[in-house]
Amino acid sequence: MRPIIFENIMKVRDYECDAQGHVNNANYQRYFETTRHEFLEHVGLNFFELHKQGIDAVVSRVEIRYKVPLIGMDKFKCTVALERIGLKYIFHQKIIRLSDEKVCALGKIEVVNLVNGKLSKPEVFDEAFKEYI
Amino acid sequence: MRPIIFENIMKVRDYECDAQGHVNNANYQRYFETTRHEFLEHVGLNFFELHKQGIDAVVSRVEIRYKVPLIGMDKFKCTVALERIGLKYIFHQKIIRLSDEKVCALGKIEVVNLVNGKLSKPEVFDEAFKEYI
Amino acid sequence: MRPIIFENIMKVRDYECDAQGHVNNANYQRYFETTRHEFLEHVGLNFFELHKQGIDAVVSRVEIRYKVPLIGMDKFKCTVALERIGLKYIFHQKIIRLSDEKVCALGKIEVVNLVNGKLSKPEVFDEAFKEYI
Amino acid sequence: MRPIIFENIMKVRDYECDAQGHVNNANYQRYFETTRHEFLEHVGLNFFELHKQGIDAVVSRVEIRYKVPLIGMDKFKCTVALERIGLKYIFHQKIIRLSDEKVCALGKIEVVNLVNGKLSKPEVFDEAFKEYI
Repeated sequence: MRPIIFENIMKVRDYECDAQGHVNNANYQRYFETTRHEFLEHVGLNFFELHKQGIDAVVSRVEIRYKVPLIGMDKFKCTVALERIGLKYIFHQKIIRLSDEKVCALGKIEVVNLVNGKLSKPEVFDEAFKEYI
Repeated sequence: MRPIIFENIMKVRDYECDAQGHVNNANYQRYFETTRHEFLEHVGLNFFELHKQGIDAVVSRVEIRYKVPLIGMDKFKCTVALERIGLKYIFHQKIIRLSDEKVCALGKIEVVNLVNGKLSKPEVFDEAFKEYI
Repeated sequence: MRPIIFENIMKVRDYECDAQGHVNNANYQRYFETTRHEFLEHVGLNFFELHKQGIDAVVSRVEIRYKVPLIGMDKFKCTVALERIGLKYIFHQKIIRLSDEKVCALGKIEVVNLVNGKLSKPEVFDEAFKEYI
Repeated sequence: MRPIIFENIMKVRDYECDAQGHVNNANYQRYFETTRHEFLEHVGLNFFELHKQGIDAVVSRVEIRYKVPLIGMDKFKCTVALERIGLKYIFHQKIIRLSDEKVCALGKIEVVNLVNGKLSKPEVFDEAFKEYI
């Protein structure tokens, strides 16, 4: 088990639910993304500022397992554990409902680094993440 | 000036921005809605529970003026002032950037009450909002 | 009545509905926007290309009246009528359900033109829209 | 290679792009979902009607590989191939840009069937999909 290095508390917004009354599947991916960007901010990086410098962290693959559906106004935490394999960073993320600590979704998100559009060593990220890996 | 009766602190999520680098216009409407639902929760009502009882607060009209664009990761507060005219509740809402207190958007949202699909006196809301109007 | 100069056929996607089973209010604004961008493409302009040249059509005000809710998989058309007042273009838009020609929503969207961030005469748009105004 | 049994032509809407100028990752999941619901409609099923009868097709797992980013106004097709393993249906889906037939994203989406909230044999779907499997 990789250690959890970051947590982000969030709350479901009603418009994120679909006609089944559950959070629509794609929104879990957005919760994962938002939490990764919060983590970046926490280590001093800003996603859009990096983009303007020609540095883009790009998702190459996601895998999400859905366990228990969130519903409107549910509070949850979204966690981050981090792994580096070759040129990729792999974010292992969970969405955990606060009311009962149930794991609602599990994500494995692979991110590569483009510099001016070319696959590159993620030096900016290596530096920023060095305490966490 | 109607008094502000509720505030909700929020933060822009990067996926809410469009290719101009600004929060896409429709998302301000979502911030207003999310804040109204938080206000409902604050006064003891749950939007989806009400729906299951056949009571639907339905937006009949929105007017939004856009002043200053929010960008990725901006923190802001969304405010609520409340007015009752005939069968309608009118929510006067603002989005105010926290860094400099600039008003980014102003909303006027008219809400009517349907009971089993029919326009009705908003008794549940009258009771819940009585301290605020 | 201003003449309708453009129509865009669309279909509700299920994720656009919320737990009430209706298309969430903010999505009508997205349908209006998508249709305006289709109209721009029709007259030879591309929203994002213009942005890269420093020309931004920016919404300064929207007013939407909600009449009849759309539900999952509904087909509809979104129309455009156009008016110019001073520096503003005003788009009068309707969302009309195809099954029974019911008007579901009415929008009035005011757009101004920024050139390098400054309010400007909308010359590019004047040229592109000249047949329609 | 499983045969493609269904295709849905779509077009990027500008609000689906993020500040990097590309379609935000979560939206590919929405394109896949929308195409599956179109496929259901094609075989005579309606997602929300099924829900009201207590039958819910629920995504249990998604895997998406991102190859080439879509940008604003890009036209693309989204395809479906279908596999049944045990109680699961597995949708193999692709997003292919029309201008050059480049594969932009590959999805593998696992769907299970709940009847009144319980994991069940997907009889409704077995019947509807029998020509395709």
